[in-house]
Formats: sequence, C-alpha cells, structure tokens
Amino acid sequence: MQISYESEIYELLKKYNIDTPKYKVFDKEEKLKFDIFPCVLKVMSKNIIHKSDVGGVVLNVKNNKELNEVKKNLLRLNPEKFLVEEELAGIELFIGGIYDNIFGKVLIFGAGGTLLEIQKDITYIDIKATKKEIKQAVLNTKTAKIFPSFRGNKYDIDEVVSLIQKFQKLFKNEEISEFDINPILYTKKGLVAVDARLKFEKIVNKNWKRKKISLFENKNVAIIGVSENKNKVGYAIAKNSLKSKSNIYFVNPKFKKLFNKKVYKLEELTNIDIAVIAIPPKSVFQTIEFLAKKGTKNFIIISAGFKEVGNKQAELDIKKLSIKYNLNIVGPNCLGIYNSTYNLNLTFGSSSIYNGEIGLISQSGAVLTALMDKASHYKIGFSHIISMGNMADFNFANAIEELNNQDNCKIISIYAEGIQYGKEFLKAIRKSKKPILFFKSGKSERAKKAAFSHTGNIAGDYQMIVSLSKLAGAKIKSSIESLIYSSQFEENEIIIVTNAGGPGTILTDLVIQNSKKLKTLDKKTINQLNKVLPNTWSKNNPVDIIGDATPKRYQDTLDILKDKSNLIFVIITPQLMTDTKEIAQILLKYKNAVPIFLGEESFKIAKKIFENRLFFNSLQDSVSVL
Amino acid sequence: MQISYESEIYELLKKYNIDTPKYKVFDKEEKLKFDIFPCVLKVMSKNIIHKSDVGGVVLNVKNNKELNEVKKNLLRLNPEKFLVEEELAGIELFIGGIYDNIFGKVLIFGAGGTLLEIQKDITYIDIKATKKEIKQAVLNTKTAKIFPSFRGNKYDIDEVVSLIQKFQKLFKNEEISEFDINPILYTKKGLVAVDARLKFEKIVNKNWKRKKISLFENKNVAIIGVSENKNKVGYAIAKNSLKSKSNIYFVNPKFKKLFNKKVYKLEELTNIDIAVIAIPPKSVFQTIEFLAKKGTKNFIIISAGFKEVGNKQAELDIKKLSIKYNLNIVGPNCLGIYNSTYNLNLTFGSSSIYNGEIGLISQSGAVLTALMDKASHYKIGFSHIISMGNMADFNFANAIEELNNQDNCKIISIYAEGIQYGKEFLKAIRKSKKPILFFKSGKSERAKKAAFSHTGNIAGDYQMIVSLSKLAGAKIKSSIESLIYSSQFEENEIIIVTNAGGPGTILTDLVIQNSKKLKTLDKKTINQLNKVLPNTWSKNNPVDIIGDATPKRYQDTLDILKDKSNLIFVIITPQLMTDTKEIAQILLKYKNAVPIFLGEESFKIAKKIFENRLFFNSLQDSVSVL
Repeated sequence: MQISYESEIYELLKKYNIDTPKYKVFDKEEKLKFDIFPCVLKVMSKNIIHKSDVGGVVLNVKNNKELNEVKKNLLRLNPEKFLVEEELAGIELFIGGIYDNIFGKVLIFGAGGTLLEIQKDITYIDIKATKKEIKQAVLNTKTAKIFPSFRGNKYDIDEVVSLIQKFQKLFKNEEISEFDINPILYTKKGLVAVDARLKFEKIVNKNWKRKKISLFENKNVAIIGVSENKNKVGYAIAKNSLKSKSNIYFVNPKFKKLFNKKVYKLEELTNIDIAVIAIPPKSVFQTIEFLAKKGTKNFIIISAGFKEVGNKQAELDIKKLSIKYNLNIVGPNCLGIYNSTYNLNLTFGSSSIYNGEIGLISQSGAVLTALMDKASHYKIGFSHIISMGNMADFNFANAIEELNNQDNCKIISIYAEGIQYGKEFLKAIRKSKKPILFFKSGKSERAKKAAFSHTGNIAGDYQMIVSLSKLAGAKIKSSIESLIYSSQFEENEIIIVTNAGGPGTILTDLVIQNSKKLKTLDKKTINQLNKVLPNTWSKNNPVDIIGDATPKRYQDTLDILKDKSNLIFVIITPQLMTDTKEIAQILLKYKNAVPIFLGEESFKIAKKIFENRLFFNSLQDSVSVL
Repeated sequence: MQISYESEIYELLKKYNIDTPKYKVFDKEEKLKFDIFPCVLKVMSKNIIHKSDVGGVVLNVKNNKELNEVKKNLLRLNPEKFLVEEELAGIELFIGGIYDNIFGKVLIFGAGGTLLEIQKDITYIDIKATKKEIKQAVLNTKTAKIFPSFRGNKYDIDEVVSLIQKFQKLFKNEEISEFDINPILYTKKGLVAVDARLKFEKIVNKNWKRKKISLFENKNVAIIGVSENKNKVGYAIAKNSLKSKSNIYFVNPKFKKLFNKKVYKLEELTNIDIAVIAIPPKSVFQTIEFLAKKGTKNFIIISAGFKEVGNKQAELDIKKLSIKYNLNIVGPNCLGIYNSTYNLNLTFGSSSIYNGEIGLISQSGAVLTALMDKASHYKIGFSHIISMGNMADFNFANAIEELNNQDNCKIISIYAEGIQYGKEFLKAIRKSKKPILFFKSGKSERAKKAAFSHTGNIAGDYQMIVSLSKLAGAKIKSSIESLIYSSQFEENEIIIVTNAGGPGTILTDLVIQNSKKLKTLDKKTINQLNKVLPNTWSKNNPVDIIGDATPKRYQDTLDILKDKSNLIFVIITPQLMTDTKEIAQILLKYKNAVPIFLGEESFKIAKKIFENRLFFNSLQDSVSVL
C-alpha cells in the first residue's frame, strides 16, 4: 500500500468540499511559524506508517517558540517534512468505505475514536443511497442520539448527511478501494475530517446487463423430460400443468402419450415461449442451445447436479448461453414457476395453488414447498411463484423486475439465502412499484456455515444485506411464514384484545421487537368500550377485557374495534368462565381477527372451528403474521 | 447536593485502595510546584459545580513555569485552592452506583467517556454479587473485547473485577446514595479513577424477614367459601380438592353438604394447616385473623378486589397480619396452589394436573391456566404450583425457598411480571439448590404500561431485573411455554436433522439467538452418518439429509444421533418424495426428537400421530423448547 502524505489526502478531501484542519507544510530546515494555538506538530515521512507509535505526533503545542523546540526534538526521526495543524475538539464520528464482493463500494458511518472496533456502532450506506436513505441509516446508529443537541451543543443530522454525500461522490470518482476517516470531529464550527487513511486501487466494476424479455410470456410451453413414473419430477410437473390455459407440449423421445396428450420429440417443437427442463444435467446445455436457436427465450432448469454438487463449470456455461442468446434461465436445481395469468403450474410441488396477489420468490425449494403447503391450507393465493434454485443466470433483481411488470402481482415476497449482485438487487428494490417483503436466512456465523454447505452460495454478511435492503425500501420479515401471512393484513397499527393482562404484555413486547406498533385508542373508542366492558378493563391497547370475559364481551369489543385496525390479535386463556367454543365461533365472523389460543386441552373444539383460518397456539408463533 | 473537593473524594477512594492520579493541593497564594508532567491544573471551589465549563481545568501543562502562569490566569475565578494532578491516558471505563427501589444499591459498569450516555454499553452488578458474577457481568459488555489485549496493550479482566469489588465495599460502607466515576482510565500502569462525583445520603434499608414456616404442610386443609354454584370459584376448588390425601374441610355457613362431604362453619375448625379463602374481600381480614389466632399458619387468598381495583390499604393490612402472626399469605387475587405430596389441587383451574418434577410459580393466573392446560395435554407433571396473585405478603423469594425444601421438586419455573424485593429475590436464586427457569414479561416501554394497568405492580426495569437474576444463576427463558417444555429436555447441545438446508439455517439462527449451542459432531459420528446418507449430506450439524429423504433415512440418522443430544429438532418439509406419515411414525420412537412439520395440508395425518407429543408447526415456535 502506497503511503500518502496527510497533506495530500487533505487536499483530496478539500476537492470534495470536505473540511480538514487548517494546516501548513514546512521543509525540514525551515523555521516553523503558525497562527492557531494549541496546534499539533506531525512528522511527514514515506517511511513511517504509524506516526503516533514512534512519537511523531505532538499535541497541544501552545506557541511558536514551543513549536520550534518540539521540532528540534523530532528531527531524530529523520522526516522529509513537517506538518503543523490546528488542534480541534468535538464528538468523534467515523466514515469509512470498503469494496464488497456483493455490493461493490459501500460506505460505513458510525461512532468514531478508539472504541470504533469495540462498540461497532455502525451502519452501512450504499454508494448510490439517496439522501433519505442516508438519513435513515444515520438514525439507525446510537450515535444519532446527539441530534439535535447533546450536552448543550447543537448537532445537525443534515450536515452529517451532506458530508456522507460528499464521501459518496469522492468514493465513486476516485480510484480508491478502501478508506477510513477516524475521527471525523463534529466541532463547534462543524464537521472536520481529522485523520484519514486511503487505499488507492482501481476497481473494475463487473458490468451485468440483460435486455428486456418476459419470463411470464407463457402461451406455448414445453416440458422436457416428462415421465410416466409417478415418483419422478417429470411426472409431477406434467400433471400439475394439465389445468393450464397455455398450450402445453410434453417432450420425451421414449414414449408417445401421457395423460392422454401427445408426447413430442425435441426436434418437433417450434414457437416455444418457455421450456421447463427436467432431464439429466449433462444434456441440459445442448437442449437449451437447440431451443434458443429456434427462438425460445425462457428456460426453467429443474434438474439438479450442478453447483450444489461441485459442478460449477456447467453453471458458468449456462450463464454464457444466456448472454449469447439473451435468455432468462431460471435454476438449475429449482422447483419451477407458477403463473396465474395462464393458470400455469410448472412446479413439481404437490400443493394446490390458489390465485391471488402475492408474487413469491424463493431461493430454497424446500421453504417454497412449505409455504405453498401452508398457503394452500389457508387459501392464500399467488399471482406468481419463482423458485430460484442455484441462480446460474436469472437472479433476484430480474425476478423483482419481472414481477413489477405483472399487473396481477400486488406484493412481492422474497426468501433469500445469499445475494449475488448486490447493486442490481438494491436498484430493483428502489425501482419497485410494489411493496417487497424480504426474509434473509443466515444471521449467525454458525448459520452461515450451514448455508454454505447447502447452497454453495457465499452468504454475504447478514447485517449488510439486510440493512442495505431495508434502506432501499424492502420490508424485513422475521419468519418465513410472514412472507405469505402478513400480506393478508395490510400494514397497520395492531390492536390486542385479551382476557388476561400477562399475555397481553408479552405480545406487546413481541410486536415491538418486530418493529411494529400498537394502535393508540382514541377517546371515542374508549368511551364506547367503557359501555360494554367491566370497569376494571385496561382503558388502553392491549384491551384487557378481564378474566371472566364471556363470548358476548368478546363480540361487543370486536364490534367496536373491527374497523380500527386491519390486524386484531385476540388472546384467549382458558380461565374458569371461558367458553372457548363460543368465543371461537364469534371470532370467525371477524376477518381481521387472529386468535391466539393459549392452551391445548381446552381448545380442542375451538381449533376445529378454526381449521382453515389462521390461528396460533403460542404468543411467539403469532408474530409470524407481522 | 453537597459539593466535595475532588481531593476529598480522592482520599475516600484511597481508603478503599482505589488508585487516583497523583496530586497536590495548594493554597490560593502558594507558589505551585509539581514533579510529574504533563499535568492538569484545576480550581477548587465550593461555588463551582462544573469546573470545565467555566474554564477552570487546564490540561497538558508542561512545566512549573507554565503551571504558575496558568494559575495566575485562573485567579479570576476566585477559587479557594488549587489542585495539580498528573495527566493520564488510557481506555475510558465507567463505574457508577445507584439506589434502586427494587434492588437497593446496584453498581453499573461499562464503557466510559463522553459517549457513556450514547452507547450505553453497561451492565448491572448487585452489591452482593460474587467475584464470578462480576466477571460474567463485565464479559457481557462490548468493552470486554479489550481483554486480554487491545491495540498492543494488555488489559486484565481480573484487575477490573477486583476494582469493582472495591467499589462494592465502598458503596456498602459509606453513606452514599449515588456515584459515578467517569472515566476510570485503564492506563499502562493500571486502573485509575480520574473523575468522581458522589452523592452523600444515608439509605435506610428496608428490612424484611420472616420465620421459617412451610407452605406445603398440608395435612388439614380448609376451603372457606365453597359453593354449590358450578360457575363459582368456590365450587371449582372444592371439586378439585376431592382426590387429595389431605383432610379437607369445606366451610360455608349457608349449607350443610357438598359432594357428599360435610360443610362446616368457620367456628368449628381446629388444627388447620392451610386455609384457602374464596369469600368477598371485605371478610378476608377477619377470617384470617380468626384462624391465625387458632394456629393456622398458611393462607391462600383466592378472592379478588384488592390492589388490582385500587384497594391498596386492604393489602397493607394483610401484610401486617402476616407479620403479627408470622404467616404465609399467598395472593390475594390468585388461582391457588397445587401440592403433589398430598395430591392436593387447591386451584380453580379446570385442567387435570399430572405429578412431576416442576415447581411452577406464576404471577399471572391466566398464564398459569394456559400452561396447566398445555402441560395436561402433553402429560407434563408438576411437584408444586403456586399462583402468586398480588403478592401482598408471600413473594417470589419465599416461593423459591419453599420449593427448595420440597424434595420432589427438581426444577423451579417462574413467570414474573414485576419483582418487589429484589435483594431477597437474588439471594434466594443464589441459595437455590435447584435450577431456576425465569421468564419476565414487560420488556418494552409500551409493555410496561400494559403491565401497570394490569397488575398494579411497578414493573421494574426489565434489563436490570433480567441481568441481575441471570448473574445470580437463573436461566432466562424467552417464552412462557419454555417454563414447562424446556425442563423435559435436560440442558444440552442441540442437534438439528433436516431434509432442507434453508430451514436448518433459520433454526440455527434461532437457536443461537436464544443463547443455545449446536453440538459439534465428532469424526466417528460423521463417519457413521456417511454410511447411511447420500454423499451430498451436510457433513455437519445441522444434519441436512437432503430433499429426497425417505422415512428409513430419518430412522438411520436418528439411530446414530439419538444418544448424542437430549434435544434433536427434526425438520420435515413436504417435498415430492416426503412420506410425512411414515416419518411421523418413526419419530414417535425417539423420545428426544421434536418434529417441526413445515406445512399444513401435507401433515394432517402426521399431526394426528403426534397429537399428544410435542411438535411444532413453525421454526419460530419450536424455540419455545429452549
């Protein structure tokens, strides 16, 4: 690493209107003369990396006489030059920049000083983050408590945001791969970059582009590798596809008919929009190229046996094919896709799929299967489903873009284990006109290990991926179920109705831990509740309707609250007077009520009543709606 | 607040062998002379509270000449004296002490300096905490990352612990109600208290004692206020008591027989060990006093209508009764107690209770009902149950002591909303010979509000209560269910078996979030698994046995792992080949296997098979076993 004189770095910062201490550079022999005191004297030497460690920095010099005395002393270090700068005091902040394999150039802001590494009060900021995103990121640090004032001094968050924007520009324009400014001092006169290290290095940006083609143009569909064997994937997909409005072409050279439909040879196909491929991995490349030459643009590779078993080259080859012919290639090693527009189920899942508004994107086939199974039970519908598999070509950014072009998709839900193209992913989130729900697995170090052995993906740093995605506009979810449940209950402030205070308190904790809010009840509502509830009710949300609550009391309460929130958790504990069956029957009438039955034996009938409607068995589990 | 000269505080610290900077005090007119440089000059004045703010502190004075020049300048502040001290550098730590209403004198340790309030990297330490507890507390801060070395310097945690012990002694002995030492500098020569504020104030300790009497001496039992009305509490308790081996005396002046047993008048009773009281609140006091005079020592007040409806005086009266006659008075406003020794169910709960090893203490009757309902379903047994209610007299510390005296209680589970006698509570935890599982509600500010309106208890600061209890030895639980489930699975490192990588990763996250560990598989086990699993299995815990896992593969895996951990989570996602019914039947054979069925439709039969064995429906919910 090339060592730069501090003065050179200061000059670079000044080019971007970033304040530095006032300073002067002197030749070795020159007499020192400065006019701001106290000041700092530093040696300048290309041979000294850590000036402080060798005593090459002297603080709190009080006048020019002292300055020249101290200088004499420092000549023993044999520096090329001397630098004198004003000594500043203020709150220590930190701004740094790194080059990340997934997200490219990313800024880091946080608390500075010696304790940077210990407290790690930091936040990540994409180099393309908007002003609003930067502000939000800054507010996510504890350091933000200094705004608008701390210990009698004023600190303006907008000044900090504007400084970060200057560093965005600098980091983008200059050939720098890494830098850290520690500290940035927030002095009484404003923000000053005091100590700076830069690593000059040219970063070659991986450019990645793809012309617009629609994955969901699914009029003519080929299923390649259909099977007569019920235990084979090729059988399941063929069967699932039967109800579609698309023209389905089964392909297998070995037999002629399946489900009373003709089975084609590959060579017979023409005008295919999308081909689903469920054949041994070694024939996949050839098959795609054959169809691509005939104009097919979209491919779903179901077949496994690629990266996940160490076969990386085959995926690189597929990627090349995609670029050469401008294709969408989903997979390999995926479960397939679903497109409600054509009522087209090209997955090998065994669940029936209802039409609806969720566009579900899942990196894991198993998680997808689980969610489809649950959705089918509760009749939660999808507009589209995309099982991403190994993502040799088609990635999350593409999937978000595709779903944005589909009118019947109203909400996009993503289950991700690792992200490859961070920049594009953030861009797609920012551009999305539809809300994006995002669950990322692999929070802990140990979990990362598990993810690695599973997907062969390098799971990026959880915190970085999640915080950057959140800043870009995604809603971070904390359970896989919430990807399908929470879309049922439009974003809102939550109401809790309960016949017991304790569980109401615990659920409040959980709601707030999940960054959701409880609705504050207005006077009018409280007055209405006063009329139907005993005097000891909580007068507050959680609405504690007291242990002896009858079914009628639940009903009266919900009649008053039903239009006040789209999500009302209703807690029932099985106390002496509690008629769980009757209460369950009443709750059925309220679409936005989600019961939490806190018990087992006493709720056998209640659970039967709620068999096909969402209910929970524990407070902990209920937050999967959030 | 009385202002002390810094020198006086330094002298007090020295009395406890706490290092301070070397210093000298000078009269106003005296010529200054010091021998350690750089040094700091400070004015000493009873009229100046914040010396720094008025310029009364000058740092980095380099020699005696400069010292006297600076002094001249400071005479304008008209100080009584001057203090000169050596200037030190080091890592900034913080030690403070407060008097808390619940826990009495409590120490706080953490990162010091300006950012103390911003970073709040602190930990609470009871004034009676042992060396081991202190060390653990220090390790809970981020600052602990400096041990054993940071940036080339060595830092010894034992030195910090020993310093905290000195402050424990000082805080205990001196008439101080609050202090903060910020910073304590960890210099190259050791720890030095540089800046100190103390608030002198005498704290009168609330003394609270009670002679030993046994709540569970239950040979002769009176139930006062039995009822013929099926909807009344007095009916339910009477009915629940019928199977007991104790002599049960029903009391009600209004009728003669109930369940074919004689109903007594209060005056007829003699030799009663424990009386359960379910009569209107206004008659409770009289009734207790009447029986107390006749020698009854234990009372359970079921009746409501006390503090929870604003009737505080009645509870103070009950407390006085308890002190006067040396009684145990449980409640009021509680669900009752259960004592397996006499097969005695004195609750009005409707669940059947199995005999077992858990002693369950619950502040909320509703939470208790819910847990009893679940326990009954899964045949989880209790040695004792105590519903605490408003805790006018009998408190958590008493309950822990009582359960420690019962041999058949092997584990103590506590559900708490607020703690009243913090010191006694911690002492009881420390003394307990049985493991204590502890769930505390009211984590968030908002939740505190809810708790307040419910219990009338001032819910103490969650963080303080939980961290002090944990240091004292309690195991902190994150769901109410874990109070009964987790005792089934002896403390151990967990194994995850899964047919899908994604959910395995997510569960790993959740396990680690709950401060539990995954078992590391040894070579031998891995080799054994290699023989029965496909080549692509994860070779690791989570044990990913791959999407096409058959029932036999689950069985082979569990046969190898069954003795390796007491808790094996088994994840099943409903993939194409997954025979959920067969797998469920196999899992039934392994007592320590807890299945997580990730889906709905595909698991209908599997769930029937597991009807009376613990299983989960979501990853999130499964952690209630931890």
